[in-house]
Amino acid sequence: MKKVGVAILGLGVVGGGTYKILTDNKEYFKSTQGLDVTVESVLEKNVDRATALGISKEKVAGSIEEVVSNPNVDIVVEVIGGIEPAKTFVLKALMSGKTVVTSNKELFAKHWPELEREAKNMKVGLFYEASCVGGVPIIRTLTEGMQANKILSIKGIINGTTNYILTKMAKEGQSYEEALKEAQKLGYAEFNPTADVEGFDATYKLSILSSLAFNTKVSIENVHREGITGITKEDIACGKELGYTLKLLAIGKNTKNGIEVRVHPTFVADTNPLASVNDSFNAVHLVGDAVGEIMLYGRGAGALPTGSAIVSDVIFAAKHTDYYYSYFDNSEKGNKNTKFVSDFTSKYFIRLSVKDSAGVLSKIAGVFAKNNVSLSEVKQAAEKDGKVTVAIITHECLESAVNKSLEKIKAQGAVISVDGLIRLED
Amino acid sequence: MKKVGVAILGLGVVGGGTYKILTDNKEYFKSTQGLDVTVESVLEKNVDRATALGISKEKVAGSIEEVVSNPNVDIVVEVIGGIEPAKTFVLKALMSGKTVVTSNKELFAKHWPELEREAKNMKVGLFYEASCVGGVPIIRTLTEGMQANKILSIKGIINGTTNYILTKMAKEGQSYEEALKEAQKLGYAEFNPTADVEGFDATYKLSILSSLAFNTKVSIENVHREGITGITKEDIACGKELGYTLKLLAIGKNTKNGIEVRVHPTFVADTNPLASVNDSFNAVHLVGDAVGEIMLYGRGAGALPTGSAIVSDVIFAAKHTDYYYSYFDNSEKGNKNTKFVSDFTSKYFIRLSVKDSAGVLSKIAGVFAKNNVSLSEVKQAAEKDGKVTVAIITHECLESAVNKSLEKIKAQGAVISVDGLIRLED
Repeated sequence: MKKVGVAILGLGVVGGGTYKILTDNKEYFKSTQGLDVTVESVLEKNVDRATALGISKEKVAGSIEEVVSNPNVDIVVEVIGGIEPAKTFVLKALMSGKTVVTSNKELFAKHWPELEREAKNMKVGLFYEASCVGGVPIIRTLTEGMQANKILSIKGIINGTTNYILTKMAKEGQSYEEALKEAQKLGYAEFNPTADVEGFDATYKLSILSSLAFNTKVSIENVHREGITGITKEDIACGKELGYTLKLLAIGKNTKNGIEVRVHPTFVADTNPLASVNDSFNAVHLVGDAVGEIMLYGRGAGALPTGSAIVSDVIFAAKHTDYYYSYFDNSEKGNKNTKFVSDFTSKYFIRLSVKDSAGVLSKIAGVFAKNNVSLSEVKQAAEKDGKVTVAIITHECLESAVNKSLEKIKAQGAVISVDGLIRLED
Repeated sequence: MKKVGVAILGLGVVGGGTYKILTDNKEYFKSTQGLDVTVESVLEKNVDRATALGISKEKVAGSIEEVVSNPNVDIVVEVIGGIEPAKTFVLKALMSGKTVVTSNKELFAKHWPELEREAKNMKVGLFYEASCVGGVPIIRTLTEGMQANKILSIKGIINGTTNYILTKMAKEGQSYEEALKEAQKLGYAEFNPTADVEGFDATYKLSILSSLAFNTKVSIENVHREGITGITKEDIACGKELGYTLKLLAIGKNTKNGIEVRVHPTFVADTNPLASVNDSFNAVHLVGDAVGEIMLYGRGAGALPTGSAIVSDVIFAAKHTDYYYSYFDNSEKGNKNTKFVSDFTSKYFIRLSVKDSAGVLSKIAGVFAKNNVSLSEVKQAAEKDGKVTVAIITHECLESAVNKSLEKIKAQGAVISVDGLIRLED
């Protein structure tokens, strides 16, 4: 039986889950894969974490050098996260001829070309299925299941924390602050939630996924990013009435004007399967020119789901040692001819407070029409304290046209305030 | 640039779709994959089909020997379907050292070990992603995305024809015969619909998928099969009232008593994501011990979706010529220790016509209780012509216990007829 030695860098949530799967399913991998996989080394400052998992102290390495010079280690699993020291460690492992399996989306989003170049030089594997959407095999779907297709769009709920918060707000009428607190209490959100709630995490993942989908380097700088911190209960309730559910959507589109990549709160029509992806679940919806629609659904984070992707990569790498990662030629320069769209085309949901006076609606509609924004639905609530809330849904139009219209409308004085402006997907 | 020659055996729906993708996206594959893929040969009796697609007559081979002896052909795509001549052709291609890509579920379900043995002997690739669920990469998910997991269950809507018919019956109140006729008119069902409506097609696919999921040979003989021809409008309407949607479900479970594999009409709770998979769409829901729930959704059939899987396999095979299929050691003997469960455990929906007399319900409930069938819901309709319809939903119980109870109940004479008995999944 083939023996495979694994080192795990970092014994946090995902490192612990990876260790658990590798040990719990050790006999199973022997019988089903013909592989005897052993964790030979771990790199973790907190030795108690290792011993709590049942790892003997002798296996806890004192340095990355000790790990990569260990001849029993074939595959290095990096689950530290962040840029440093993860980047140095991964490069050292690759340079030592070790195959690397990582869940590090930030590292990949920011330094993919460097890592890929080193792996190619050394002809070793570099696997990163776990970097996006946890246990859902989205990377393999893009690289091995859909290569026949020109991919037209990718739309995903790819951050579990924000989806948990938005689900709580929608289902229990909680405010953003209340839902965030509960998510933190349950471990779905970190003490400093910025990376999740401001959309950075989703941006890293979208940059990786859309690079693969559109066969060109999509940097995080190319991604338009907005978080969910400004979302109110009122937005969600108002959307609900019109048949829409609010999600933090990551959207990549391959349009005739170029590539559009954006992460922002989005109203999704209740009939869209993404609308019913709740709590910490993730889902990615893809459209290919041949296959049409595909959707993948599952847990995007957590010890065992992410560990599942890591260990599946480990098994694949162990069985195919001559197979180094070569799907996407992510050159450092990227494709210079790639155009990115900055003035998006979308449908919009707009919520306004207007003065309760005759003709105000017709004035507003007139300004939109003049700016080529055609409206598909206008709903006016009952007057309250001299104010009326108006909810508007537009047809597809340029974002610049919507912004220009709103400026004009505000300047006219009929509108008291623009309370919500949220993009919308059917 | 690497040149790759492809032969297509059979220019039916899927063969035509495959040809279209290979030609339409030829330049795209050059730029994204570094592959110059050309259809070098086709085997098709009806030469007009070839010329209609724009294939020159010189490329239409006169025999399989001509195809496999063509040195320009690297990869043979078999999309004829059925056992013969497909089996002979595939074996000849493998024996000639050609990699084979196929969509042939019946061939794989019935002769997989023989094909696999030949591919291994010759060290050539044998790819069959297109055999199950069209363009949805379910085979790769099982073999490369979830190997870390012991798979606990697989539940799928894996036949588009029956799903189209059942959707029509549910949404438009059509009878089975009406919906079948419409499906035939639209090309979703064949003139002889037996393979689809009697569940053979789903059985072939389930045998392949559950073999991969449970790492043992699951033959079609192991699969309990029931089709949808006996389903009535009344069953569907009655389930709807109780919050269930009727689907032809393929179910594989890895239980402590053994492996359970079955294809039959099933009431799926409306809250289950499978319930909202409509028309000719397919979906597969998997549970792994590490990853938890995963669901894949997309088009399970059709020229371009199935062609997408074929061409993705072709590209993969062309890029990884030293990578022959080795995931599943599908020995001809199978695993002799594998136990299969024949007396299933499930929840059941039962519809009875009973005489409208006092105490009849209590009598029926009593018989069920004596036979260890515990009821979770009983609903009685208003009396009509001296008869009353009773709908019953049971808790999980043995199928044999349900059947025994129904026999006893019938023998007692209180029940006029058992009008429906359908398994149920939450």
